[in-house]
Amino acid sequence: MEEETLYRSLRLPHRPEGKLVLLVLDGVGDIATAATGYRTPLEVAATPNLDELARASAMGRMIPVLPGITPGSGPGHLGLFGYDPALFRVDRGVIEALGVGIDLRTDDVAARANFCTVNAEGVVTDRRAGRIDSGLNRTLCQKLGSIGRIGETEVIVRRGRSHRFVVVFRGGGIAGPLPDSDPHGTGLPVRPIVAQSRERKVRKAAEVIARFYRQAMPLLAEDYPANSFLLRGIGSLPRIPGFEERFRLRAAAIAAYPMYRGLAQLIGMRTLKEARDIGQQFRQYLDELEGFDYFFIHVKGTDMSGEDGDFDGKVTVIEAVDQALPILLQKRPLVLAVTGDHSTPVALKSHSWHPQPVLLNSPVSGSDGLSRFTETCANRGSLGIFQSKYLIRLMMANAGLFAKFGA
Amino acid sequence: MEEETLYRSLRLPHRPEGKLVLLVLDGVGDIATAATGYRTPLEVAATPNLDELARASAMGRMIPVLPGITPGSGPGHLGLFGYDPALFRVDRGVIEALGVGIDLRTDDVAARANFCTVNAEGVVTDRRAGRIDSGLNRTLCQKLGSIGRIGETEVIVRRGRSHRFVVVFRGGGIAGPLPDSDPHGTGLPVRPIVAQSRERKVRKAAEVIARFYRQAMPLLAEDYPANSFLLRGIGSLPRIPGFEERFRLRAAAIAAYPMYRGLAQLIGMRTLKEARDIGQQFRQYLDELEGFDYFFIHVKGTDMSGEDGDFDGKVTVIEAVDQALPILLQKRPLVLAVTGDHSTPVALKSHSWHPQPVLLNSPVSGSDGLSRFTETCANRGSLGIFQSKYLIRLMMANAGLFAKFGA
Repeated sequence: MEEETLYRSLRLPHRPEGKLVLLVLDGVGDIATAATGYRTPLEVAATPNLDELARASAMGRMIPVLPGITPGSGPGHLGLFGYDPALFRVDRGVIEALGVGIDLRTDDVAARANFCTVNAEGVVTDRRAGRIDSGLNRTLCQKLGSIGRIGETEVIVRRGRSHRFVVVFRGGGIAGPLPDSDPHGTGLPVRPIVAQSRERKVRKAAEVIARFYRQAMPLLAEDYPANSFLLRGIGSLPRIPGFEERFRLRAAAIAAYPMYRGLAQLIGMRTLKEARDIGQQFRQYLDELEGFDYFFIHVKGTDMSGEDGDFDGKVTVIEAVDQALPILLQKRPLVLAVTGDHSTPVALKSHSWHPQPVLLNSPVSGSDGLSRFTETCANRGSLGIFQSKYLIRLMMANAGLFAKFGA
Repeated sequence: MEEETLYRSLRLPHRPEGKLVLLVLDGVGDIATAATGYRTPLEVAATPNLDELARASAMGRMIPVLPGITPGSGPGHLGLFGYDPALFRVDRGVIEALGVGIDLRTDDVAARANFCTVNAEGVVTDRRAGRIDSGLNRTLCQKLGSIGRIGETEVIVRRGRSHRFVVVFRGGGIAGPLPDSDPHGTGLPVRPIVAQSRERKVRKAAEVIARFYRQAMPLLAEDYPANSFLLRGIGSLPRIPGFEERFRLRAAAIAAYPMYRGLAQLIGMRTLKEARDIGQQFRQYLDELEGFDYFFIHVKGTDMSGEDGDFDGKVTVIEAVDQALPILLQKRPLVLAVTGDHSTPVALKSHSWHPQPVLLNSPVSGSDGLSRFTETCANRGSLGIFQSKYLIRLMMANAGLFAKFGA
């Protein structure tokens, strides 16, 4: 029997008798190196509340996709949400468009975009146009938005932060995916968008985007350094089963960044309003408790400090989460999982393949007799090392949502 | 997406910026029993150099094929080289023929052979013919080689050590696999070779080998105790993708025994000349550094002592590797994996299914804070327990050879 079918057949009909909470400290996993005395941020951070939780929890480590594979945030989170990231692919443009609040349709093609600088020969000299401010971004997006339509296709332009924006091409028989126009380096020309498949809708989309470029470039001619733009992650809404349908859990996302809000929306989670800080995120959980069974709470800071190579910064974010934790525990979740979507080691300044630690706490999680939520403690936990896609199954089991299999 | 396709799609085009080294201590894994005070050879051995390496490494244990399955050397090594041993089957005759330097072709059928003793009734009384010396072996192989041809099929006979030799049947529309003529016990007759499939080429091969036996037996009639011979592992070259094509790594094998040289050649690794001892093997690595990206270094002694039930012998081999290790580290590999192809516990005197310990060291491996390369330390490592076929993916990830998956 296929795994998904088996799990589905065992799902008991009742709602959980408490809340399931997935607390994601993005990129929290790290590696111990000589440079930091062989200690990781989780090991250095003072975390009395997490320590207390750890003593009553099961622990382990998770492989986001497959051994050795470093995931982007999309695959990393899809795994946590119980979707095999090797089977469900989502283009970044789609995630970003959802995240900025565009209600994508099946005949849309969405792209992440950023303003860039090109020289007289059309060669990219700055991929971020000197990180222009959001005010200029607004003006430029209005110019591009004025194009409005390419043939039968509507063009929607939505500004983001700094040099970033999103473009959605709507209708007229188009489909993704398409390769990036971003050459991913300076000294190279903006790449023409060429369909990689012979599918008619994809070729049509490539034509539409080429025409959009031709109309847009003259509009930006005077706006040096933001005199061009790059498109990335161009794609259409994937066919992906909804979270509530798949797991029979009403789910809410408490996440500030568009990417994670978009991911949650993609699988039908309700996104709550953006919170100011971790404490407020936890208070949103308290406030919205009645309406949902499952809460995805996303903390970005750990990943950002990891990417910046900022060991102390990562420690600080972990400690801030720890200090706010009692708020969450005021109405203690029935099942609480604390983990990352992947590791972002300070030494690498990037996402990595190293399995991230996970802590699972419930009245029936058992305790592994470990004193802290760290990588080395997690190595010795009862959950072992497993693929992230199974985490939700463990959470559901801990919530008493599965029948016994067989007699 | 299929795993292999996913990994392939993420392989970055560049060569690694250092060397990947797989150091195989054949059968190094062991089990702790009361008879040896619950200590394994790795635990008893004095290994200051491996200890130092361990402190800066990630560790874990590997399942060669599937839980409970004891692999032969072929499947054991195919796993280490990144080929699922359940999918890629290689007959032992093929490996041995390659190992003794026969350049096998697709229309060859190869067999391991050894001289044996049969009585007047054709019953095997000694499966190794009293382990005759290599001089007599040479003479007997010349006799068999004089047969030269069976119909359209060329017969190539190549002597090995002691009572062992290899026979290759070439051309004439033949193919393997065929069952052994070896009854795998004394008191039984030499088995007639009978095709297990209806395939024409396989049936033809069985006929050719039967005719070979009829012509060969009279030639050996006077050579008691070596008056017959047994064939094993009869097969043809499998379709197996080359290592360089599969992983885009130029690979060299530093191995003394024909079996391991044959395995390496099968997947297109270059085999370097046979070295005298472990120190010389490591010096070959230093000498040949420029030409390759990946080195497979094979140490046989650990397995041999395990098979002999020689605990102290196994300790001695491990200590010899440890003492020679600084030679290898003179030009430190970017990624170094130390492991076995399986366990060969002294208490079992045979290969076993017990997961073998593995140590993975690179600038980005991280450290698990463990002090020694032993079974019990490995149990607590960040790599967990995983199938051997993933080791090369972890080595490649540590060498920075994979792009991020998804955005």
